[in-house]
Amino acid sequence: MNGSHGHKSCIVIGAGGVGVITAYSLFKAQKCQVSLIVRSDYDHVVQEGYNIDSCDYGAVKEWKPHYAYRNTQDAAAGDRFFDYIVVTTKNIPDGAAENTVSQVIRPLVESNARIDSTRVTCVVLVQNGIDIEKELQEEFDHPLALVSGVQLIASTKLAPGIVHQKGKDHLIVGAFDAMDAHAVAGAREFVEMYRNEGQNHVEFDASTRFTRWKKLLYNAAINTTTALVELDVPRCLEFAQGSLGTEHTLFRPAMQEIVAIAASEGITLGEQLIDFFVEITRNLVYKPSMCVDHEKGQLMEIEVIVGNPLRIAQRNGVPTPTLNVIYTLIKMLQSKTKEAQGLLKFDEKTARLAQ
Amino acid sequence: MNGSHGHKSCIVIGAGGVGVITAYSLFKAQKCQVSLIVRSDYDHVVQEGYNIDSCDYGAVKEWKPHYAYRNTQDAAAGDRFFDYIVVTTKNIPDGAAENTVSQVIRPLVESNARIDSTRVTCVVLVQNGIDIEKELQEEFDHPLALVSGVQLIASTKLAPGIVHQKGKDHLIVGAFDAMDAHAVAGAREFVEMYRNEGQNHVEFDASTRFTRWKKLLYNAAINTTTALVELDVPRCLEFAQGSLGTEHTLFRPAMQEIVAIAASEGITLGEQLIDFFVEITRNLVYKPSMCVDHEKGQLMEIEVIVGNPLRIAQRNGVPTPTLNVIYTLIKMLQSKTKEAQGLLKFDEKTARLAQ
Repeated sequence: MNGSHGHKSCIVIGAGGVGVITAYSLFKAQKCQVSLIVRSDYDHVVQEGYNIDSCDYGAVKEWKPHYAYRNTQDAAAGDRFFDYIVVTTKNIPDGAAENTVSQVIRPLVESNARIDSTRVTCVVLVQNGIDIEKELQEEFDHPLALVSGVQLIASTKLAPGIVHQKGKDHLIVGAFDAMDAHAVAGAREFVEMYRNEGQNHVEFDASTRFTRWKKLLYNAAINTTTALVELDVPRCLEFAQGSLGTEHTLFRPAMQEIVAIAASEGITLGEQLIDFFVEITRNLVYKPSMCVDHEKGQLMEIEVIVGNPLRIAQRNGVPTPTLNVIYTLIKMLQSKTKEAQGLLKFDEKTARLAQ
Repeated sequence: MNGSHGHKSCIVIGAGGVGVITAYSLFKAQKCQVSLIVRSDYDHVVQEGYNIDSCDYGAVKEWKPHYAYRNTQDAAAGDRFFDYIVVTTKNIPDGAAENTVSQVIRPLVESNARIDSTRVTCVVLVQNGIDIEKELQEEFDHPLALVSGVQLIASTKLAPGIVHQKGKDHLIVGAFDAMDAHAVAGAREFVEMYRNEGQNHVEFDASTRFTRWKKLLYNAAINTTTALVELDVPRCLEFAQGSLGTEHTLFRPAMQEIVAIAASEGITLGEQLIDFFVEITRNLVYKPSMCVDHEKGQLMEIEVIVGNPLRIAQRNGVPTPTLNVIYTLIKMLQSKTKEAQGLLKFDEKTARLAQ
């Protein structure tokens, strides 16, 4: 491992199927130093590296990032300034307090400030949801350049150090705030650092809010529903046919509510996007992320995908009868997982949550 | 077993926890002959009888009904006329065709007609839901006296021949059609045959449609929700707190929709009933029937509890945004169970239901 690959330093947080491909893409382009936070399979990765079977990059044997750390505390303990903190983990603000994005990146933000308080730290959130930048704006005094990444990719870690990327990487990167010159410059530079011509796809996003609302159309309506019933999308569509069927009772009304919420803050999502999402999902037997997370007994990204849009709807007076029901039901499932994980306690004697 | 207990003959269909107590109540009152259809534990019951631990009747040892049959075909093969066909099974019209109420009772209705076509056959449906009598009106040419039974009871079959009744039996019986003199007379007679003074509670119901809508308030809103998330009622209430919580986003709106549907056909359910149901369920850690059925991998009574009310709403132009979502989701779960049971086939190649 050496530092000869360029001036900028990136650290990727989250070494699941997606994070490893993200780190490898930066490494392959050879325009920055790549550090990776590797939690569960750290020892394996340090010894043997990754074996990646990728539709973008082919067979990659024994790949190691320039630096690997067990956690962000360890990464912050050195004297390395990280120009880019790239977060590819799930965003679950209602989960364990130590796993919120702000808590996870805090050691890095603080060590950066200690090393050079005049240099810009760029945080790239490659995550789903709306208003995810708010937490970082509230939690940190030192201004960060906040960059949005919206990614389409299918990649899975099959075993320690073994990653299989089935679906091509398509990443769109821009400033959360288009008036923030540091964030805009950071996003543009990140696009250049990330690009592997002819292999992956990355582009600059001039309107990240629109991009995020657009992806929410799918995630708030369809991803949530599949999680509630633990079924792939075509089964959801086919298993409740008729005039009160899934498409007309759930998917379209829920998406129309997202269109209305986005419109209430000046973002126009064309109705044809609704047709698009219904049609592309109809024939692909596929379980989206929330469904997979829930089936694994893991927490889901319910607040950034449904909770935050509904809070905007409440502020702006947009009626959301369908999403309200979806949110309430999925919140119950989330709490059920929290109870199983010990994050929440229910007292059967009082029939109330224990404090 | 002998025929000395009176002139009328009753046959009880469904020998689960509830059906056995229903049959025993008729037997104990000594005003009719009691036949029982015993499916799974027939051999055990014929040899050893039932051992019942009952909050109404105490410890009952080795009880046997006057007659027991494996199925309604066997019961119909004799020359016995059954004045009362008492159905205590679940009502699942979307389940296996041979298990619909009309198919199950058909042999008895036909043998009755053969034995004495001038005598009235009373069918007592001790079941949940609305419009459950319609199937029998459509399926049979010979007019039946259709009697409604709405029961509150908690009773479980723990093992072959072993029944534990924890909650007192409260049965209310009346004519589905108050203008049907045979059904009214049959209901009144059934009340007398069923009563065990000081032990169980049975009364005549002058307005069965009101009674059924009232019970639907609970079943369509609360029972369904618990099944969707597989949680008891207090956890449902506590696990999604806040202004968008379960009570205000789900339970009350769903119940208000039932109130509106009932009102559209002239039945007035007071709003205070909604408060009543929310309050009585808040402190009792209890999983209702649909939740239990679903957790056991069994089909749920979704059509009589949600589907039929929604069909009335559609006819009468009543908006039901909350119940639509609940129905669509629970229909997906029902189809999932049907797929597991082989009642429905999904072709992953075409991503469509197989014909």
